[in-house]
Amino acid sequence: MARTYPTAEQAADLLDRVREKRPRVHCLMNTVVQKFTADGITVIGAIPSMTSSSDEIADFVSKADVLTINLGTLDAERRNVIERAVDIANDAGKPWILDPVHCDYSPSRLEFARTLIARRPKVVRGNRAEMALIGSLGDIVSIETGATDRITDGGRTVTVRNGHCWMAQVTGTGCLSGGVIAAFLAAELDALAAATAALAATGLAAEQAAACARGPGSFGVAFLDTLSALAPEALREGARIDHDD
Amino acid sequence: MARTYPTAEQAADLLDRVREKRPRVHCLMNTVVQKFTADGITVIGAIPSMTSSSDEIADFVSKADVLTINLGTLDAERRNVIERAVDIANDAGKPWILDPVHCDYSPSRLEFARTLIARRPKVVRGNRAEMALIGSLGDIVSIETGATDRITDGGRTVTVRNGHCWMAQVTGTGCLSGGVIAAFLAAELDALAAATAALAATGLAAEQAAACARGPGSFGVAFLDTLSALAPEALREGARIDHDD
Amino acid sequence: MARTYPTAEQAADLLDRVREKRPRVHCLMNTVVQKFTADGITVIGAIPSMTSSSDEIADFVSKADVLTINLGTLDAERRNVIERAVDIANDAGKPWILDPVHCDYSPSRLEFARTLIARRPKVVRGNRAEMALIGSLGDIVSIETGATDRITDGGRTVTVRNGHCWMAQVTGTGCLSGGVIAAFLAAELDALAAATAALAATGLAAEQAAACARGPGSFGVAFLDTLSALAPEALREGARIDHDD
Repeated sequence: MARTYPTAEQAADLLDRVREKRPRVHCLMNTVVQKFTADGITVIGAIPSMTSSSDEIADFVSKADVLTINLGTLDAERRNVIERAVDIANDAGKPWILDPVHCDYSPSRLEFARTLIARRPKVVRGNRAEMALIGSLGDIVSIETGATDRITDGGRTVTVRNGHCWMAQVTGTGCLSGGVIAAFLAAELDALAAATAALAATGLAAEQAAACARGPGSFGVAFLDTLSALAPEALREGARIDHDD
Repeated sequence: MARTYPTAEQAADLLDRVREKRPRVHCLMNTVVQKFTADGITVIGAIPSMTSSSDEIADFVSKADVLTINLGTLDAERRNVIERAVDIANDAGKPWILDPVHCDYSPSRLEFARTLIARRPKVVRGNRAEMALIGSLGDIVSIETGATDRITDGGRTVTVRNGHCWMAQVTGTGCLSGGVIAAFLAAELDALAAATAALAATGLAAEQAAACARGPGSFGVAFLDTLSALAPEALREGARIDHDD
Repeated sequence: MARTYPTAEQAADLLDRVREKRPRVHCLMNTVVQKFTADGITVIGAIPSMTSSSDEIADFVSKADVLTINLGTLDAERRNVIERAVDIANDAGKPWILDPVHCDYSPSRLEFARTLIARRPKVVRGNRAEMALIGSLGDIVSIETGATDRITDGGRTVTVRNGHCWMAQVTGTGCLSGGVIAAFLAAELDALAAATAALAATGLAAEQAAACARGPGSFGVAFLDTLSALAPEALREGARIDHDD
């Protein structure tokens, strides 16, 4: 039987659904890029929250539709909170995404990422160095971001060719895209399709932003503008999604 | 006797006084929007500080003219620091404002907000969902922000009609306006007048910013530009302040 | 014997070397300006990291070429982590810079800054109020930033006249310049020359940014653009470096 692969058409429809649903995305996000990520989640049409205290995490995860776990600026307390948040999300059947930021810098962080992966996130997203250490994920959707983004669920493998080199010059574009993927996960059960659509949307918005920016600073600002204004028709025409076969 | 209501004229004069006085505003601010809030306080003409450690809070509050307590990204340590900061401010007769961010997400946060309100902030500011839970505040100035801002001190009720819908798309504009209200509280004893002037100033700056922005990203940047350049004469002409009577 | 003083020519060459070397700069940075600082370090051509947990600090400092210690939003845990980071850097012979933010607000912070200075940073950077309290540093490079920046290593004293008044209106430009100085320290053993070149580069980029900005908000964004695009030839022509003699 032929496999069903994500398409530009589907990405456009999914963007519409995210904006209609307005999912709540709770983020356990590194302290560096909390505002940038919250802004990105808001302009795509979802509702972010960011609390990471142990006495309130249950309340916030209960309110949320989906969870983003980002391992940047990790510490002991945040580890505990992440573990609780994942337990609550799993018990409630809520999807979550793991972003193992800088797990290539710290063996203990890599170890922690592995224990989290054993609890079955829907998606794991990292750069090449991080994902090389994470290794194969079986049927969990695995994303390696870079000049092009490579997404696989073990069976299907998709490449998204949207994006711009300035993304790597702005701290937090990857973390922000993790938040956008989460928003899409809340609106689509096929995690590979959700991740592909989200990466095409952020990548295309980045291309549009670069066209009217003068450098990484104004690019980061314009990126929020273009993400906010991104039309489903533009995504239908501009998403560059390929697959192996 | 006829009540005295805030006017655009008074708002303009108060903006002048804030810039002349250059008050120090200490912020116990959620980690998401610390820079945006600090930038907003700076460009309006005041001096922000942000430390939240228990061993230094006394030094920082002692240096400050006014305090902003924001309950976003709350945790146990921050609760203790907030309580100490409020004690010091109250003992010294320094005004403070409470922003009970997301108290509608967490019963324990709502409970904490109530214990703080019992210690008599000059102003409490929140969105509709938050303020509905907070309930009536007697003679403490209560602000419900939204498409229009509604401000009351139990006796007088004022509406500020300045603002722009993009404010809701930029994380932290409400928190920033809390910091600006604090700066105005340091320059005016009538808390209702201070809050009204600050909201008219931020709302008008937002309108000016929207006129030269292309979306929420460039709006957030332009907002700091227009807040910095806001002329008292522009506020005198552009402030849209109504009152019930 | 005549002393050797930093020149615009040397600053331009050093900028080239930083971009070639792409040093890793680990930052123990206040939570307010982590993203702005990380963006500044990235666009100048270096690689930032920001983790401040006690269980991971050794891994991150080991990966880094140079360290930035910024005392903003200090707390007890961060003090311990800073002390460990400094130990590791000193043992490995890695340079580090100290930014004693707001030590004029808190006697305990000033005391902590002094204990760190006893461990011999390569550079200490502060504003006038901070550096007045820090006092003389012997042969450690001392920078007092302001309308002009004054840099001394006890023997040589240099003035950098680049910069723009909007820098003082954007929270974190000083912290960001601390990160850029760190990147330059990784590429040049003469700490006075490294600091001078870094301050000329950030100051000139600020001048270029101000020329196309409408206020402090758009200035902060344009500053990242101009820092990213700063050409060594522009620095060679535009660096305004004087010395006493």
